[in-house]
Amino acid sequence: MMKLYWSPRSRSFSGLWLMEETGQPYERVLTDISTGAQKTPEFLAVNPMGKVPALKDGDVSIAEASAICAYVADCYPEAKLAPPIGDPRRGKYLQWLFFSPGCIEPAIIQIFTKIDVPTSTAAWGSATQVFDVLDAALEKGPYLLGETFSAADIMIGSGLNFAVRLFKMVPPRPSFDRYIDACAARPAFQRAEKIAAG
Amino acid sequence: MMKLYWSPRSRSFSGLWLMEETGQPYERVLTDISTGAQKTPEFLAVNPMGKVPALKDGDVSIAEASAICAYVADCYPEAKLAPPIGDPRRGKYLQWLFFSPGCIEPAIIQIFTKIDVPTSTAAWGSATQVFDVLDAALEKGPYLLGETFSAADIMIGSGLNFAVRLFKMVPPRPSFDRYIDACAARPAFQRAEKIAAG
Repeated sequence: MMKLYWSPRSRSFSGLWLMEETGQPYERVLTDISTGAQKTPEFLAVNPMGKVPALKDGDVSIAEASAICAYVADCYPEAKLAPPIGDPRRGKYLQWLFFSPGCIEPAIIQIFTKIDVPTSTAAWGSATQVFDVLDAALEKGPYLLGETFSAADIMIGSGLNFAVRLFKMVPPRPSFDRYIDACAARPAFQRAEKIAAG
Repeated sequence: MMKLYWSPRSRSFSGLWLMEETGQPYERVLTDISTGAQKTPEFLAVNPMGKVPALKDGDVSIAEASAICAYVADCYPEAKLAPPIGDPRRGKYLQWLFFSPGCIEPAIIQIFTKIDVPTSTAAWGSATQVFDVLDAALEKGPYLLGETFSAADIMIGSGLNFAVRLFKMVPPRPSFDRYIDACAARPAFQRAEKIAAG
């Protein structure tokens, strides 16, 4: 059984939502970041970055929220969280999965800290453009791949819920509101919210 | 045949190196960022972020350098650039593949711009810790997965070559030097360098 290390009030919400979407049993290991549990030697052996979420599958530990999504989605194909290798939707699925940590997360910080970085220097380009491109991609909806929900929506949906709705770090847009609503209406999202609330 | 959109003097070096590692034929589409070719309507239809590398496989366009690595590595299993689904090394492979855009790239910018971001706010945590963790992971070597070269080395190897060796944005470390040397010794890296030099 996979073990998910998580904390209330953290980005590990994506891990809870992911595991709930699989429909598979998993063990939750509370790693409360408000008590510094992520800095203990035991946890640093799982993820030397000292961050949740982290996952253990047997002897293998896996960190980085999007990597956990990619891994778990491919491990449980019956949950249909990832178009399989060879499916024409696989490329866009991977693109959006990497867009989350590679573009959205740094763009949130850049908008929040009001820091100017030359667009040719930053791998994510322009922070405004990141949200413009996402806005256009979500125009049709309900999900990034259209009618097909995927693990990429777990990363981008929880990121927008965090940055737009909960912490108001990024201005709302109609497409973002519709998308967050579609994500938040999923039973697995709601179960994860209940777990995260304790 | 896959089409790779690339430019000299850009992060699309990773795409060239990747395609050369596959041993498969591919078409290169020069998209010279020094002439603004990445901002033409034709290219924006491929990648609305206006960045190289970008890939077309049939009708499907894929952007984000790490996503292109993940996609191509799984498409050509005979090139052994990714441990297959079910292989115990798959988790760490994905972790390092996402560590590149999610942690290393923003940490490079943070060190370069000398900007302080609270470690709990930034998804990548502390910029110094990003390089400490990478240093420890490369201690044994020669590659991130030990003796097994993977597409994660293409992303992290080209990132360190860019930030440590070529542009000196990040201080060198002995493990980084050994790793960049191991990457640069690969025939596919050298072919990519020749193509990138024009």
